[in-house]
Amino acid sequence: MKIQLALDRLSIEEAIQIAREAEESIDLIEVGTSLIKEFGISSVSKIKEAFPNKTIVRDIKTIDNAVYEFELCFKAGADIATVMGVSPVQTIEACLNTAAKHGRTAMIDLLNTNAEQKDSLFQYNDAIFCDHVSKDEQEMAGKKKSSTAQSLDSSLQWAVAGGITLDSINKMTEPHPDILIIGSAITQSDDPGKAAAAFKKVIDEGRVEYQ
Amino acid sequence: MKIQLALDRLSIEEAIQIAREAEESIDLIEVGTSLIKEFGISSVSKIKEAFPNKTIVRDIKTIDNAVYEFELCFKAGADIATVMGVSPVQTIEACLNTAAKHGRTAMIDLLNTNAEQKDSLFQYNDAIFCDHVSKDEQEMAGKKKSSTAQSLDSSLQWAVAGGITLDSINKMTEPHPDILIIGSAITQSDDPGKAAAAFKKVIDEGRVEYQ
Repeated sequence: MKIQLALDRLSIEEAIQIAREAEESIDLIEVGTSLIKEFGISSVSKIKEAFPNKTIVRDIKTIDNAVYEFELCFKAGADIATVMGVSPVQTIEACLNTAAKHGRTAMIDLLNTNAEQKDSLFQYNDAIFCDHVSKDEQEMAGKKKSSTAQSLDSSLQWAVAGGITLDSINKMTEPHPDILIIGSAITQSDDPGKAAAAFKKVIDEGRVEYQ
Repeated sequence: MKIQLALDRLSIEEAIQIAREAEESIDLIEVGTSLIKEFGISSVSKIKEAFPNKTIVRDIKTIDNAVYEFELCFKAGADIATVMGVSPVQTIEACLNTAAKHGRTAMIDLLNTNAEQKDSLFQYNDAIFCDHVSKDEQEMAGKKKSSTAQSLDSSLQWAVAGGITLDSINKMTEPHPDILIIGSAITQSDDPGKAAAAFKKVIDEGRVEYQ
């Protein structure tokens, strides 16, 4: 299981500093949507330059204009870019095709998709699926877990996101996600390096329980 | 009926130059999603500075992190910001509340919403609704018209978007949209000023037909 550090609501300099402190314990670095919408494409090129050996995920949340946005991501050094599962099918397929053309990967964010949309998306087995409880759902509705969480198809690649803490990973019901996306539990910690190391230790020791 | 000029897939300098040429014939200037994802928040502040008396629409396509993104838009000078209708309800309501707090407006983009989602969204009668055929649907599926197009509720405020040309506005079926969003038919014209004036002339002469 890999750790993806999500960098959000920070300056690019702060993001790089925090990722540097957590570097040894994490596998993927996510350039969060807020960094993209605040600072544009330079956010990903600067972070890729600072961490050339890490897998860089650009959480661009594409919902239209797929080829343009995914080309922009990959040219700036992203290895993985995100597309919303609630997008029109043309957009999702164009993201997958653009990723394949560049030898990169599309992550399909299942935020607010219904059962029918999920069934249709699961045919795209080159993608990573992100089972996502959004910030707004966490903060405003106290939602902790998606409706997909107990039925992840283990033949697909999965990332899970949404308010994950050291405490909550012991209560996760997902069967074997490939990637844990962790944001504020590391970025807002007093000691991001120590916080990231604590997550890695729990994972390395196999203490993440799937109920 | 107003004209909203959508600026996309351009540098900020090109966007300002084109908007300057079209200025006399247009009412609203949209800082397109591609400008935001490429250049960040400075795209809106630079365009607002260049056109202080125009209504600036920031097509930020919020789908999470509503308060943060909408605050970012309004602080940079946007008058209207967009939220996706396919977002969780918490996100949509937070966008509407943030807009109200600043005395600004949220535009709800109906892209890929189903009938049930639309019915639920139409309660938010402070918003402008955008009936939207996406770029990818136009270019990859040849889609010209949304399924909503023939049943717009005239008690709500409507914008229509998606490949509108001088030819197509004579074939529009929508009853009285408040705003026509026009992009490449002006921005990619050899003479954006002349193209915008032609749209304004058709509207001023009442030659837009609703079938």
